Amino acid sequence: MLQVSQRTQRIIASPIRKFLPLVLEAEKKGVKVIKLNVGDPDIEPPMQFWRMLKNYKSKNLPYAPSPGILEHTLAWVKYYSDFGVKLQANQIIPTVGCAEAILLAIMAVTDHGDELIVFEPLYSSYKGIAEMCGVKLVPVTLKVENNFSLPSSEEIEKKISKKTKAIVVINPNNPTGTILTFKEINLICAIAKKYNIFIISDETYREIVFEGEPFTFLKMKNFADNVIVVDSVSKRFSCPGARIGCIASYNQEVMSSVLKIAQVRLSAPTLEQYALVPLLKNSKPYTKKIVQEYKKRRDVVFERLSKMPKVVCRRPQGAFYIIVKLPVDDSDSFINFLLKTFRHNKKTLLITPARDFYISRNLGKSEVRIAYVLKTEELKEAMQILRLALQEYKN
Amino acid sequence: MLQVSQRTQRIIASPIRKFLPLVLEAEKKGVKVIKLNVGDPDIEPPMQFWRMLKNYKSKNLPYAPSPGILEHTLAWVKYYSDFGVKLQANQIIPTVGCAEAILLAIMAVTDHGDELIVFEPLYSSYKGIAEMCGVKLVPVTLKVENNFSLPSSEEIEKKISKKTKAIVVINPNNPTGTILTFKEINLICAIAKKYNIFIISDETYREIVFEGEPFTFLKMKNFADNVIVVDSVSKRFSCPGARIGCIASYNQEVMSSVLKIAQVRLSAPTLEQYALVPLLKNSKPYTKKIVQEYKKRRDVVFERLSKMPKVVCRRPQGAFYIIVKLPVDDSDSFINFLLKTFRHNKKTLLITPARDFYISRNLGKSEVRIAYVLKTEELKEAMQILRLALQEYKN
Repeated sequence: MLQVSQRTQRIIASPIRKFLPLVLEAEKKGVKVIKLNVGDPDIEPPMQFWRMLKNYKSKNLPYAPSPGILEHTLAWVKYYSDFGVKLQANQIIPTVGCAEAILLAIMAVTDHGDELIVFEPLYSSYKGIAEMCGVKLVPVTLKVENNFSLPSSEEIEKKISKKTKAIVVINPNNPTGTILTFKEINLICAIAKKYNIFIISDETYREIVFEGEPFTFLKMKNFADNVIVVDSVSKRFSCPGARIGCIASYNQEVMSSVLKIAQVRLSAPTLEQYALVPLLKNSKPYTKKIVQEYKKRRDVVFERLSKMPKVVCRRPQGAFYIIVKLPVDDSDSFINFLLKTFRHNKKTLLITPARDFYISRNLGKSEVRIAYVLKTEELKEAMQILRLALQEYKN
Repeated sequence: MLQVSQRTQRIIASPIRKFLPLVLEAEKKGVKVIKLNVGDPDIEPPMQFWRMLKNYKSKNLPYAPSPGILEHTLAWVKYYSDFGVKLQANQIIPTVGCAEAILLAIMAVTDHGDELIVFEPLYSSYKGIAEMCGVKLVPVTLKVENNFSLPSSEEIEKKISKKTKAIVVINPNNPTGTILTFKEINLICAIAKKYNIFIISDETYREIVFEGEPFTFLKMKNFADNVIVVDSVSKRFSCPGARIGCIASYNQEVMSSVLKIAQVRLSAPTLEQYALVPLLKNSKPYTKKIVQEYKKRRDVVFERLSKMPKVVCRRPQGAFYIIVKLPVDDSDSFINFLLKTFRHNKKTLLITPARDFYISRNLGKSEVRIAYVLKTEELKEAMQILRLALQEYKN
């Protein structure tokens, strides 16, 4: 018998995208589905991006060099320098979004059967990428009731084995919306140093912080060899369709390993690398503006959620997500109810069940992730729908 | 000690790109290096591509759906229908170039430790992708003296083990420029059926054939469940920087597996998917034109090579590569000589050593791959440089 691979059998269908058939069904019946499932911003990318695209001079469309178009890579150098980080061009390699950066980083530091420490709930693509790489994710469980703060060093160290190659952090966090405290950052660095393991830091949402300043682990110069940053322009410039991210590290062995894989897959898209140059060189005017907007949205969503009976959540400090514990036994069933049954003024709501953001079984069953990627007026309506639907829903 | 992975250690630096430092050094000294190393066409992509890009209407740049923008995927359906192949939209998933299609196809049908039958010399990215997937490439060696024709079925079957999951074919072939005969196609299908293994058919150069008609394994309807086609627009529309390819199969289990990984990495670039729609829907006017051009180039290169003393090569039937056995002990050293020492009218030549296209040790040491991706006048000059350099070169 022709058989597909076990590894793909183990990958779950995307929790963010699995309700699409029910959405289409509802829409066919004339129901408007307000979508707070995908982290796909409704905000327009900066005009410069479109202007640069129109100004692309060559009539040819060649491969970009595998280590990136030099002008683009140097724009990343400038971008990081605005955060007080000095990198050389060969310490950065552009990738096809952060997803490819994660794949390359994990491939570069693990072999089949190795382990990574992660904090759950966790952005679900990591689970699929781990299957692709043949590595085991070893979860440290965080709780909404504690605002997803890290446990003691001992609790984390218990999970480390001889096979552990790295700790993965996502900061600001998808799906929780939390930001690491300086104490937590130091704790992670200390563990990485003590056990000689890497820190893979996913900083896709770097600028989207509502308190304090944007941070990068590249600032931790005493741990320079341990740190591998995976990054993306998707959220900060509202252009996820551009598929441009990067991987950055001071560790030259890591970068050599990454470059070898980068050569295997040839290059990241050429036009988008060009179009992003001026934005990377001068990122703050745009990112400051969108952070204001996301902060307003955070306030609208959090204020309303915190007034709903028996709903548990904490005020997000960054990114544009919130994990919410609902008074339901199974959030998958509740979302089914939203899409199939519940209507308010011919509208309903799509949110993401949080169970698949966990690795441990039976966690997160009552939780959902809400992405506040729509305008405040729509969010108000969405929260009203949620409130009414929870009233009507029978477990 | 912090250590990078064994798997990346095993990946060789790209043979196509490893001479870049020497090229830059020569260019700094005012030497013109004619580059026949990379399969990066000098031909412009069709004007429609640029027109579509300029006409992109939305001011947003969202993720494309993981199974592709429907309009784009349907354009692939139309494209294949022009070759007499009827596919449904869900039997095609757009990818980030053919490189990603190969990765997804191999991930979908193999687990760690599995094996793939390949024919060497082989496009070198397969070696790196195999390391990424943790699979072993088991080579069947082909020889320039036989125009790289396949051996008997028995010779191939000898290489099949319980771990074999697929046979990989590249047709038209990179790096050899050969095309499979119908006898060879039938032989491969028969073996796949007999042993219940997949055929991964890389058809990036489908239209670039100088004799006979373009072919796809998707036409082999009796073997529909075995066939997985990996494809790309890079060469046929002269736009490798667009990073768009696809994976196509009638086997729904395969496509479900591929889709899961496609969701993990989110999507292929949005703008390029749009821009390629009209080209895919009406590909032949453009591809017919470029085939005429490549045929002229093939003739210029082959005619000159076949007159050089002690040079062994066969007339390529497709793609835009030729493997040439030179009267040198080590083609790496010869290319070093070209870049460092040899000058003709202040010009020299970059070609690719073929050794790294082989998996078996000690094969291909005297061979090079030449990509005829420049205009005929430049190719004439390049062949003159090669002839004179061979005269001057001392092993």
